[in-house]
Amino acid sequence: MRAKSNPLNIFEFEKLAKEFLSKEEFDFIAGGATDEITLERTRRIYDSIILRPRMLTDVSKVDTSTTVLGESIRFPVLLAPSGGHRKAHPDGELATARAAGRLGIGIVLSINASYTLEEVADVASGPKWFQQYMFKDRGLTRNMAERAKGKGYTALCITVDTKGVQPKRERNIHNKYAITNSPNLPASEEGFWNNVSGDSLYDYGLSDPSADWNYLEWLVSNTTLPVVVKGIMTKEDAQLCIEHGAKAIIVSNHGGRHLDTTFATIEVLPEIVEVISNRIEIYLDGGIRRGTDVLKAIALGARAVLIGRPIFWGLAVAGESGLTEVLQILYDEFIRALIQCGYHDLNSVDVSLVGLRSPLENHLS
Amino acid sequence: MRAKSNPLNIFEFEKLAKEFLSKEEFDFIAGGATDEITLERTRRIYDSIILRPRMLTDVSKVDTSTTVLGESIRFPVLLAPSGGHRKAHPDGELATARAAGRLGIGIVLSINASYTLEEVADVASGPKWFQQYMFKDRGLTRNMAERAKGKGYTALCITVDTKGVQPKRERNIHNKYAITNSPNLPASEEGFWNNVSGDSLYDYGLSDPSADWNYLEWLVSNTTLPVVVKGIMTKEDAQLCIEHGAKAIIVSNHGGRHLDTTFATIEVLPEIVEVISNRIEIYLDGGIRRGTDVLKAIALGARAVLIGRPIFWGLAVAGESGLTEVLQILYDEFIRALIQCGYHDLNSVDVSLVGLRSPLENHLS
Amino acid sequence: MRAKSNPLNIFEFEKLAKEFLSKEEFDFIAGGATDEITLERTRRIYDSIILRPRMLTDVSKVDTSTTVLGESIRFPVLLAPSGGHRKAHPDGELATARAAGRLGIGIVLSINASYTLEEVADVASGPKWFQQYMFKDRGLTRNMAERAKGKGYTALCITVDTKGVQPKRERNIHNKYAITNSPNLPASEEGFWNNVSGDSLYDYGLSDPSADWNYLEWLVSNTTLPVVVKGIMTKEDAQLCIEHGAKAIIVSNHGGRHLDTTFATIEVLPEIVEVISNRIEIYLDGGIRRGTDVLKAIALGARAVLIGRPIFWGLAVAGESGLTEVLQILYDEFIRALIQCGYHDLNSVDVSLVGLRSPLENHLS
Amino acid sequence: MRAKSNPLNIFEFEKLAKEFLSKEEFDFIAGGATDEITLERTRRIYDSIILRPRMLTDVSKVDTSTTVLGESIRFPVLLAPSGGHRKAHPDGELATARAAGRLGIGIVLSINASYTLEEVADVASGPKWFQQYMFKDRGLTRNMAERAKGKGYTALCITVDTKGVQPKRERNIHNKYAITNSPNLPASEEGFWNNVSGDSLYDYGLSDPSADWNYLEWLVSNTTLPVVVKGIMTKEDAQLCIEHGAKAIIVSNHGGRHLDTTFATIEVLPEIVEVISNRIEIYLDGGIRRGTDVLKAIALGARAVLIGRPIFWGLAVAGESGLTEVLQILYDEFIRALIQCGYHDLNSVDVSLVGLRSPLENHLS
Repeated sequence: MRAKSNPLNIFEFEKLAKEFLSKEEFDFIAGGATDEITLERTRRIYDSIILRPRMLTDVSKVDTSTTVLGESIRFPVLLAPSGGHRKAHPDGELATARAAGRLGIGIVLSINASYTLEEVADVASGPKWFQQYMFKDRGLTRNMAERAKGKGYTALCITVDTKGVQPKRERNIHNKYAITNSPNLPASEEGFWNNVSGDSLYDYGLSDPSADWNYLEWLVSNTTLPVVVKGIMTKEDAQLCIEHGAKAIIVSNHGGRHLDTTFATIEVLPEIVEVISNRIEIYLDGGIRRGTDVLKAIALGARAVLIGRPIFWGLAVAGESGLTEVLQILYDEFIRALIQCGYHDLNSVDVSLVGLRSPLENHLS
Repeated sequence: MRAKSNPLNIFEFEKLAKEFLSKEEFDFIAGGATDEITLERTRRIYDSIILRPRMLTDVSKVDTSTTVLGESIRFPVLLAPSGGHRKAHPDGELATARAAGRLGIGIVLSINASYTLEEVADVASGPKWFQQYMFKDRGLTRNMAERAKGKGYTALCITVDTKGVQPKRERNIHNKYAITNSPNLPASEEGFWNNVSGDSLYDYGLSDPSADWNYLEWLVSNTTLPVVVKGIMTKEDAQLCIEHGAKAIIVSNHGGRHLDTTFATIEVLPEIVEVISNRIEIYLDGGIRRGTDVLKAIALGARAVLIGRPIFWGLAVAGESGLTEVLQILYDEFIRALIQCGYHDLNSVDVSLVGLRSPLENHLS
Repeated sequence: MRAKSNPLNIFEFEKLAKEFLSKEEFDFIAGGATDEITLERTRRIYDSIILRPRMLTDVSKVDTSTTVLGESIRFPVLLAPSGGHRKAHPDGELATARAAGRLGIGIVLSINASYTLEEVADVASGPKWFQQYMFKDRGLTRNMAERAKGKGYTALCITVDTKGVQPKRERNIHNKYAITNSPNLPASEEGFWNNVSGDSLYDYGLSDPSADWNYLEWLVSNTTLPVVVKGIMTKEDAQLCIEHGAKAIIVSNHGGRHLDTTFATIEVLPEIVEVISNRIEIYLDGGIRRGTDVLKAIALGARAVLIGRPIFWGLAVAGESGLTEVLQILYDEFIRALIQCGYHDLNSVDVSLVGLRSPLENHLS
Repeated sequence: MRAKSNPLNIFEFEKLAKEFLSKEEFDFIAGGATDEITLERTRRIYDSIILRPRMLTDVSKVDTSTTVLGESIRFPVLLAPSGGHRKAHPDGELATARAAGRLGIGIVLSINASYTLEEVADVASGPKWFQQYMFKDRGLTRNMAERAKGKGYTALCITVDTKGVQPKRERNIHNKYAITNSPNLPASEEGFWNNVSGDSLYDYGLSDPSADWNYLEWLVSNTTLPVVVKGIMTKEDAQLCIEHGAKAIIVSNHGGRHLDTTFATIEVLPEIVEVISNRIEIYLDGGIRRGTDVLKAIALGARAVLIGRPIFWGLAVAGESGLTEVLQILYDEFIRALIQCGYHDLNSVDVSLVGLRSPLENHLS
């Protein structure tokens, strides 16, 4: 299946993928905004969140499944919306959807996909949601949602953290990287992302820079799909999501690709969980690379997590089978961690499973 | 005695041992699970636990001895159960037991030893305990315990942190490392550990994945040896050990070889000491490399510590005499630290000897 | 415009400038006192101050302007007083003043400038302040202030952290670096800075080592320009500034160039903001390299920030156009950060925008 | 004066000294016990203790002098007792005493000096104390004290942290380093230090391993010199020093040369200052390399500090003139730091001058 060696984990997949991708593509996928401090922090923080394993529990039967907005998935992982999977493999999102289906998990298809939402829907066997933006043209916003619903997408994911200004991703600017427009979007002279590495810093593209909570409320009222808000990093905004009709939120810092020096997503999860208080579902993305990372997010109150860059590493290495292997590794690591921590399903996993501060600090003056 | 230079401490022994061992064996011994974060943390934490030495006490007569489950040892160190010492030296556990005897300390023989428990018993002069697992076949569990007792083993150590799933030790998988089965176990087509580096992640081997606290209680009732539970990392489980009849516990994260990103063992020791409240004995393993490490563990409430990997470094360098030298170094460093801290025996060593947070933090706003 | 590549940020400008400058000049500009711990800390701290972006606010119209002592600037950045810009480019402060004018921001001209205050005034189109010291000769102090006022300078900045003793900047001493005297100062046999790298450590030059708060009060009474005190690092001194008539203060550790092992300026800002309680304006310099740094300082209570070394990097690379590019980058990054954080002007930016401690610490025991 | 370049600070002196010394001697002087964690910590901590400089105070007249046990010194530095200065330069302690005299500071002569206490007394012009141990032979202890008093030594410094066991300094053991005995001590077959790098770990030499607080009390009663206890690292022992008649203490971890993983000395200073409550004087050694380090120790309550290794660096580079230069540098840096912090003498220097925790932590949730 692969040219060189057998990657055993997602880090090794990334390393191998780097050999299959041009520098420009690799940098676009792997990189983040400005100094990449958020990028690094979002991943690194998992290494200092501690698991407190419990012993002598019955783990002879283990069930890792859960539901997201009522739909069942085999383990609590979704594939994050991310543009243009063809940059990693010609099969692009078709391979992505098939691999997700093999593992029994869901996908959130990006409006910037390399294939149309209809083409992807035809090969997706698991839960599928559609992700888009709040466009200046509200008709476009509504129509895209209805078009997705018509093809069986069951939720509408709205990304709210990229509105108003292009990110400064310096690797891309140095590489003179240009994004290919998606077939999902209406043709236009400018295109949606055509200035991402250019000089026009304040090109709002098709997005509406004046979009506020009223726009969200309008959207909720004007689509029959449940709305999932992606890009929340504060408890204040989490509260506003509920007040304006969101059915779920995704705690996300856009993979460290937009604003630099934010918290890691897992750092703000608990305060958001607290304010949400089980009223809607909470997901999280950013930095998930190990099965233990997934378990920590669940323990801290996420319903499920999303992975983004690992999709590209799997696709780049071997298309559908590469991504399938990536997902299989994550599943294997997750079930292993769950068992080693003494749990046989997700119901009883709670915050008592994780620690942060060394207990020594409490016991030594 | 040795080919090259005279190692002065256990770190230098490890470095020298690396030259005597194949990469595959060295990696198996030295390595840990997945990212080896727990492996590193468990060792590194000792460098930031502080000794507060007391001056002008009478140290003209010093006694480092203690007892474990009533048996006397010359200083508070035991040799941890660890499989297949022949991978380091042909004399394997025979050399191990003889070296322990020379230093007046005890051994905990692993069921996965390279020699049978009977062969080892014949050469052991100090305290000896036998370590095994909770097997699916309870008869096997009981019979092994009785067989050990018959040869003079005085305690039964049950490892509880490896049940249910194979660890993911990536060095071994890359090395295609295969474990040799122990002569202690009944021959079977599969063997006990034959899949450790293979693809079958959920091979429970002979262990019982449904083993819970009732199994422990059954075992306590069905053997006349005191039961020592190895692998406890939470105060909750420490409390349960007492409730279900354990006579002692070993705080252990399996040397960072199973679940990654747990606390270091010494970090959780104080909260376990608190909940146990002197009702049973508490030992600790993981990361002990210096005499000062032993002293810190004693000060924080451990009755004794166990060392694992250093056994292999000693054996690899020079068999029985190499391990004897390792133990002599640890003894020398321990008595030196004890004296330098102003103590002449272990009775008065308590938590006041250690510190963690800089006192500056309390005195400067 | 430039020889090699297009620097995308101020760090890259510094790197490129290093190629245009002699080692002696680069070291003088980039270096700090003794071990350069303050130098490093003052910059590095920004990476751990966290932004908490808010979503779904209307950012269709954005205004980054503010006022400093009543004068309008396009975004909250001033050019810090810094001696001898000709060491970076022949046009020196003339280029500096023109670049500031292009971006609509203000300058604080150093008494140690390479051009006279009159020459610079003639080309400056934005707000301009004049910086000097408290001289032994109070007549000189007053006369310089009046001379500046006569040419349209609108505030008098008094640097108070360099009085009494030469700094120990070891790079300069090793380089045998000699400072050129400024045309602003009266000719004298000794000159003002002639011993900066020499052996006479306690050469007070023209500065008055006995200058105290009474001197400040005298100065406030003897000039019609508002007095801005530069070099305050404690809340105690901030309070004294108000009591003795200062109209504004600049929180500054002199770019880490005088006393080593102080706090970073941004670290002491909040306690100074608290004690000042909006009675006078507070500015800050030190370590500002990214637009997000500017935003963090504003959120923590600074009215504006000053940049010093980046002036030289811009000038060294391409004179006026180089510095213009540096300022344009900072402006671009600032507006981008403001928008990404969900703000459309500076009025509502407050401390709720920033964080420091991981919220995990509050939510995990 | 020197072969190569002009060292500007003590770190550069160390680097240069390394070229003048054999590896064995350099390692003996520079090295510490086992992993050298205390050695590193004791120095490094100064970099994170913060100075809070005050502005606009009158520093036209500066006085750095203080007294130690009533004797005046030019600035608050003493030369620490340290064995065998001839290993750095043939003039040994004669050069040391002369250099101290030139700078107007005091020396504490080690009993392990390369010259007799009488020879050194003849060239010393400043305050001089004598340091020794508590010997098994109390007559020897008393006689050495009287002999020192007879030659004008004004205090007796008793080192209490090395009693009972040889330190484990692995560099020395690898180097097969042998210490030369001092002419101060009675000739014996064994000598005092002859086993320092040998195999006999528990050689107590002439020191009394049973020496306790009663011995101190006996010594205080049996000598007319004030007794200074060196090697205190806890508030408990500081309190006992007062109770048993010490006139001063030296907070010291023996330069990280005996017990490893203790606190840095400056870390325990404040709690010792608190318990002593001005009843006796407190000095400190360990890690002092910069004038700012001296100032921090004074601010935290030390009366003076002692330097050890820098003596050797100065001597190795150029004997008396080299050490004079080292002391001059320290004096220059100290007075500079004092002035830059806004003080004109030591009387008003107190804990308000220093900080540790970032003020940001108090102001940001």
